[in-house]
Amino acid sequence: MQSMKKQNVSDAVIRRLPRYYRYLDDLHLKGSVRISSSVLGEKMGITASQIRQDLSCFGEFGQQGYGYNVDELRGEIGRILGVDRSHRIIVVGVGNLGRALIQNFRFNDAGFLLEAAFDVSPALVGTEIAGVPVLDATELERFIQTHKPDVAVLTVPRAAAQQMADRLIGLGVRGFWNFTNVELASQADNVRFEDVHFADSLLTLSYRITER
Amino acid sequence: MQSMKKQNVSDAVIRRLPRYYRYLDDLHLKGSVRISSSVLGEKMGITASQIRQDLSCFGEFGQQGYGYNVDELRGEIGRILGVDRSHRIIVVGVGNLGRALIQNFRFNDAGFLLEAAFDVSPALVGTEIAGVPVLDATELERFIQTHKPDVAVLTVPRAAAQQMADRLIGLGVRGFWNFTNVELASQADNVRFEDVHFADSLLTLSYRITER
Repeated sequence: MQSMKKQNVSDAVIRRLPRYYRYLDDLHLKGSVRISSSVLGEKMGITASQIRQDLSCFGEFGQQGYGYNVDELRGEIGRILGVDRSHRIIVVGVGNLGRALIQNFRFNDAGFLLEAAFDVSPALVGTEIAGVPVLDATELERFIQTHKPDVAVLTVPRAAAQQMADRLIGLGVRGFWNFTNVELASQADNVRFEDVHFADSLLTLSYRITER
Repeated sequence: MQSMKKQNVSDAVIRRLPRYYRYLDDLHLKGSVRISSSVLGEKMGITASQIRQDLSCFGEFGQQGYGYNVDELRGEIGRILGVDRSHRIIVVGVGNLGRALIQNFRFNDAGFLLEAAFDVSPALVGTEIAGVPVLDATELERFIQTHKPDVAVLTVPRAAAQQMADRLIGLGVRGFWNFTNVELASQADNVRFEDVHFADSLLTLSYRITER
């Protein structure tokens, strides 16, 4: 791979990178050693030229007539995504959704170390969920100063979302995996919100099953 | 609006439709009556010409020099998405995630009637969650024959995913909101899978916070 060019990478390309990673990971697990852009494209429902164009944003991959080495390309895309960086993450809000993510989501596979969860409920504080300690939300200041998490999973109630985001941003958190359905805003530099909008997904399905 | 042209609508356009709907809904709630494509585009982080091009797939909207009537466009996009169809939906698998969706997700706002949930756990069967009855999974056959749900929310464990999907497809379910992280497949006609891949979302955030 040549040197990385990250300027001007479009949002659409960035959104496809995790899909490439997921498909390559799956191919790797199934024992595939190499794959052509046309076969990969067919699996993913995109064109071979789209794949080549997307990857060209980041360097030169694959070889004419050989295709891609699955494990190599998976590794390169993983590094582009930052999977090798061991980002630190906390969960803020341990309702059903927070608990579901702690118990079932494979943070490690995405390159994240889940260090702690926070809630205000006395019934939860002091417990562990899947080995992750649930701490009192009043401990956020102390914890963040010492552990410096990169990302907060925001699973607090809607009404608390912006205020909690502001508080965490003030403490230095720069990444938010936002499940609150609130469009969060910040004037601070380098703050990134990744919103999970369940409704967008269900409405896409609604479109596809609606007979016209 | 002129007659609907739904052929050849790209996946990217379909995925933007729910976002348009969400932004217009928000504008409507805030009392906005009209909006130009450039102001809407600015809010959404896309260009005005992209908006006009997307909407032109479905007919003629808005007026030169006036822009769009917020409530009208919201209604039109809602109808395109099928929000007015009262699709019927069931939840299959009442773990933490299933429970979180039943309690917190606004199925009605997306035009879905959540009729029942299903699980195999004796501790859950016979209970209600937020007014939704939890039925025994053995009742799926009888229930689906009489209620004919359009969509199943699949929140069963990974290992049970494809088998459960096959069973539901055999019973006539055609839409799957799939949270299992398994890529489901079917030979049956008109079956639609909408996969929610949490990891894709977190990896997009990982890319954006990774310093290079």
